[in-house]
Amino acid sequence: MCRVVASLLEIGLRRPSLTNLADAPSQSAEGAPNAWLEIHPRYMAALQGVEVGNEVVVIAWVHQVDHDSLQTHPRNDLSQPLAGFIATRSPDRPNPLGLHRMWVRERLGLRVRIGPIETIDGTPVVETKAVLQTSSARD
Amino acid sequence: MCRVVASLLEIGLRRPSLTNLADAPSQSAEGAPNAWLEIHPRYMAALQGVEVGNEVVVIAWVHQVDHDSLQTHPRNDLSQPLAGFIATRSPDRPNPLGLHRMWVRERLGLRVRIGPIETIDGTPVVETKAVLQTSSARD
Repeated sequence: MCRVVASLLEIGLRRPSLTNLADAPSQSAEGAPNAWLEIHPRYMAALQGVEVGNEVVVIAWVHQVDHDSLQTHPRNDLSQPLAGFIATRSPDRPNPLGLHRMWVRERLGLRVRIGPIETIDGTPVVETKAVLQTSSARD
Repeated sequence: MCRVVASLLEIGLRRPSLTNLADAPSQSAEGAPNAWLEIHPRYMAALQGVEVGNEVVVIAWVHQVDHDSLQTHPRNDLSQPLAGFIATRSPDRPNPLGLHRMWVRERLGLRVRIGPIETIDGTPVVETKAVLQTSSARD
């Protein structure tokens, strides 16, 4: 076994019960809706300075994946040669950290409406932070 | 305490002992050098399909941070108002996942030379995958 680096804490949860008419798929360039993220009360202070229009990266722990899978056919296309998880974005990997870039649409106490976001109902959110800046491109 | 979601496994390590003249800061637009990442033998198959020129996201567990810090002064500038970790990229946060976007420069068995990369000597790498695609921008 490889070394366990750390334990991930859940900082928030997507709340599927909170819906909004503005979350209809037509609101997003690619059809993904917005969603409400509810931050745990323990992290209330972490929301200081979060404003509508901010661009953020949300990192989710994608559950129900195959943690032992090292290779997959890209896009589940069996005609494609097998590729290792380092060469793909398959969720089947030892540490299934899903990266989602989006905007802050609304704030309401501990709730932040963000989008566009693919469906991650029930997926624990382990990180939300300001957008990555690199030397190479607009992020 | 919040719920522990999962344990993170180390998939590789930056190897500071492997240097290369081409890693001099002048090689990068912003002065960051390249570095060798050594994947654990257990994950050898995960390198299938990784090629020079691929763009990848490397996620590191940034150690030696303040896991209990919820707010910081952006860029350590005390004249700036305190901001929560959700509004910043401060490494002081419950789950200090550092996102680094870069290119594959060279492959040599279990070793992948990647860059440009800021100094992360001794920092466990918990994820390396193909670059994030979003609807909003080139990633």
